Amino acid sequence: MRNPEKLCRQLGYEFKQPELLDIALTHRSYGSRNNERMEFLGDAVLGYLVSAELYRRFPQASEGALSRLRASLVKGETLASIATELELGDYMSLGSGELKSGGHRRRSILADAFEAIIGAVYLDSGMDNASRLVQRFFDDRFSRVDPDTLEKDPKTRLQEYLQARGNELPDYQVVATEGKAHEQRFRVECKIGTFDATVVGEGTSRRKAEQAAAEKMLQALTN
Amino acid sequence: MRNPEKLCRQLGYEFKQPELLDIALTHRSYGSRNNERMEFLGDAVLGYLVSAELYRRFPQASEGALSRLRASLVKGETLASIATELELGDYMSLGSGELKSGGHRRRSILADAFEAIIGAVYLDSGMDNASRLVQRFFDDRFSRVDPDTLEKDPKTRLQEYLQARGNELPDYQVVATEGKAHEQRFRVECKIGTFDATVVGEGTSRRKAEQAAAEKMLQALTN
Repeated sequence: MRNPEKLCRQLGYEFKQPELLDIALTHRSYGSRNNERMEFLGDAVLGYLVSAELYRRFPQASEGALSRLRASLVKGETLASIATELELGDYMSLGSGELKSGGHRRRSILADAFEAIIGAVYLDSGMDNASRLVQRFFDDRFSRVDPDTLEKDPKTRLQEYLQARGNELPDYQVVATEGKAHEQRFRVECKIGTFDATVVGEGTSRRKAEQAAAEKMLQALTN
Repeated sequence: MRNPEKLCRQLGYEFKQPELLDIALTHRSYGSRNNERMEFLGDAVLGYLVSAELYRRFPQASEGALSRLRASLVKGETLASIATELELGDYMSLGSGELKSGGHRRRSILADAFEAIIGAVYLDSGMDNASRLVQRFFDDRFSRVDPDTLEKDPKTRLQEYLQARGNELPDYQVVATEGKAHEQRFRVECKIGTFDATVVGEGTSRRKAEQAAAEKMLQALTN
């Protein structure tokens, strides 16, 4: 386990009680004095800070758009990326079993540790410093998100469009796959019984082809 | 719609910007200037405040216990009870369709409005006053919750106990029902194949009888 000096520089925060950082970096596999409670607290602090910032930044965004933006910002994948930038795995205390199975690289463990660090800063010196920490790592991300581009995906929109009108739901079927394993292309047919309508979408995965087909169907129905 | 004077007395809070309270009390069916965004914000503020308070009050509680306590405190049913005490429905602006269908009594609408009020107080004067408001309505509830009694139910615990040991899961079967419709008693057998173990639980519903059987089985396995 590395000395956390560099980590504190990257966090831009000096702990008055360094033992709080120790706990934040201790996985439950290491012992009973671990970061689980701090993660609970950090998760709630982060949820509030991100919600309040989104509320301020996007005065025109609907509640639904705000919820989707928040979900995209606080999801495990985002937190794990930050934790990886910080090389949190190098500073963590893990039980021997987790160590052997590569737990210090497991993304959920890293994401949880980053939340625990937010909790530790909050406990060490309150909400203002927790807010500074979150700003430091989320400021770029706040600037990049856009309530308009975070629309629902085409399949969801198509389903909602049809449900709202009491129509049958679409059926998706792969009609062709082309190319070798790592460069496959999928063709998916989207069919809605009641309309006798069929369109075909293409993509590099089944999911993408379905989304492309749903988008085409939406255009066909709404034009 | 009632004048909100009495409501403000009950909230123990005087708005500097009374229009924020107006918005908090406006359902989306009434118009585009409604409480949805404020509810988003209030929900996050409440989540943080309740989490921080539970963290402080229960230094020994596990993360799992804290999560369950929080869920029990911020669930819609709890918020709707508070909203009903406050008679929020009487103060709300709803669209005519919602009014006719009794929307001012619908519990989800009331719960959302209470969260929006927390958001409105936060916007009007910051976290300290939002915290005071939450304390005012949750203080009793905080005192009543107990991490030990909010344990997982016996069926869940039995399942987790067995899964952790790689054992077969239990099978529940009603072996007898006695009494008339409104005073029935159920007897349920809980069986685990690998242990050749069988116990019987009783209760006034199938669910209760299953829980009683699971509890007995847990005792049998752990004693």
